[in-house]
Amino acid sequence: MAEENKVTLHGLWASPFVKRVELALKVKGIPYDYVEEDLKNKSPLLLKYNPVHKKVPVLVHNGTPICESLVILEYIDETWTDVGPRLLPQDPYKRAQVRFWSSFLQQQLLHTLFAVIKSDGEAQENAVKELFEKLKVLEEGIKSFADGISVIDHENVGLLDIVLLSMFGPYKVQEQVIGFKVIDPEKFPLLFSWLSALLELPVVKEGLPPHEKLVGFLKYIRQNALNSAAV
Amino acid sequence: MAEENKVTLHGLWASPFVKRVELALKVKGIPYDYVEEDLKNKSPLLLKYNPVHKKVPVLVHNGTPICESLVILEYIDETWTDVGPRLLPQDPYKRAQVRFWSSFLQQQLLHTLFAVIKSDGEAQENAVKELFEKLKVLEEGIKSFADGISVIDHENVGLLDIVLLSMFGPYKVQEQVIGFKVIDPEKFPLLFSWLSALLELPVVKEGLPPHEKLVGFLKYIRQNALNSAAV
Repeated sequence: MAEENKVTLHGLWASPFVKRVELALKVKGIPYDYVEEDLKNKSPLLLKYNPVHKKVPVLVHNGTPICESLVILEYIDETWTDVGPRLLPQDPYKRAQVRFWSSFLQQQLLHTLFAVIKSDGEAQENAVKELFEKLKVLEEGIKSFADGISVIDHENVGLLDIVLLSMFGPYKVQEQVIGFKVIDPEKFPLLFSWLSALLELPVVKEGLPPHEKLVGFLKYIRQNALNSAAV
Repeated sequence: MAEENKVTLHGLWASPFVKRVELALKVKGIPYDYVEEDLKNKSPLLLKYNPVHKKVPVLVHNGTPICESLVILEYIDETWTDVGPRLLPQDPYKRAQVRFWSSFLQQQLLHTLFAVIKSDGEAQENAVKELFEKLKVLEEGIKSFADGISVIDHENVGLLDIVLLSMFGPYKVQEQVIGFKVIDPEKFPLLFSWLSALLELPVVKEGLPPHEKLVGFLKYIRQNALNSAAV
């Protein structure tokens, strides 16, 4: 039985995309092995499993690799249907809302958040302005959420919660590195309370990367980007 | 009954994203009304239905709007489960493959294809090189397709076929506008035969935009981009 359902996750401790898969496996209660990859020296296995993108996360299930974090989350939900809570609601419209907002977070917010972390001066001011505009769209959007598409009115952590957490779970780390508030409870009260509710859950708390280690990593990313921009 | 299942698509005749939804509705055999939008003068309804992106396509089902083409395709498949063929396979791994390659087409190839159409000289040479590299990845990928994830070994048009068609269905138009072959049967024999098989299907043929009208539209897009680049 163990051999029949062998699950291995190839990851990287600081990757928000890997964090999504880790949290999904934990929420569902699926046992797995973890292999930490070194992106400067990619393992032959990683290159074999993900020849298209050569990136983590890769989930290997009974020898078959599945790549791309959002694809993996849907795979997990559709494969382990009877294990743990469902990551997506059953209703097609609610599923559409989960996918719509996950795609918004992934395609609109993630890039802008990293632009803020990697810049300073006027470039950072512009990036912050854009980030706040997009967070405002999300804040408005939360009012339109159907019942049960997020932890706000649903007891279990679902796909949309996982995508939000992968980006803003470590918001205190991000704020420490850039030196100002992003998830401001005055500006974005609904987003702040959604995130706070998630961060109180033991499965979420335990999965966050160590604060100081992530501060060091983001400072390194930021400094590297600033040095390149200055050349 | 008609009122209970009212479906309206807000679209734009030349949009590859709208074409996806149109084709999905036709493949499934779902009757719908169509509203052509004018993106220079967006209708109040479009702004109301898609306040986040303000873009087509929007599918309105019994008064409820669903946005983003890939989200809409999954919604259609999950809502009309007993009407027409399924757009996604049943097997979770095959579903993952469909989503992985759809995402590759959408995120890697679409942008590069438009970069080729909108440039000339050295910029175009670089874009063409990148496009051909990505098409080669797709060509290799086709060999790894699980049985039944595309029309290649499946009688029905599915989600991945629809995404491919939305981008390269009008490849003869694209080749006429840029003046050289993209879907070259010598370079990409598997892709060429996949696309050719799709283009022989009546439901696909009937749905292509008129050749000369699309040539005119793409030439206009190309010329506009070249003029902006020259300023």
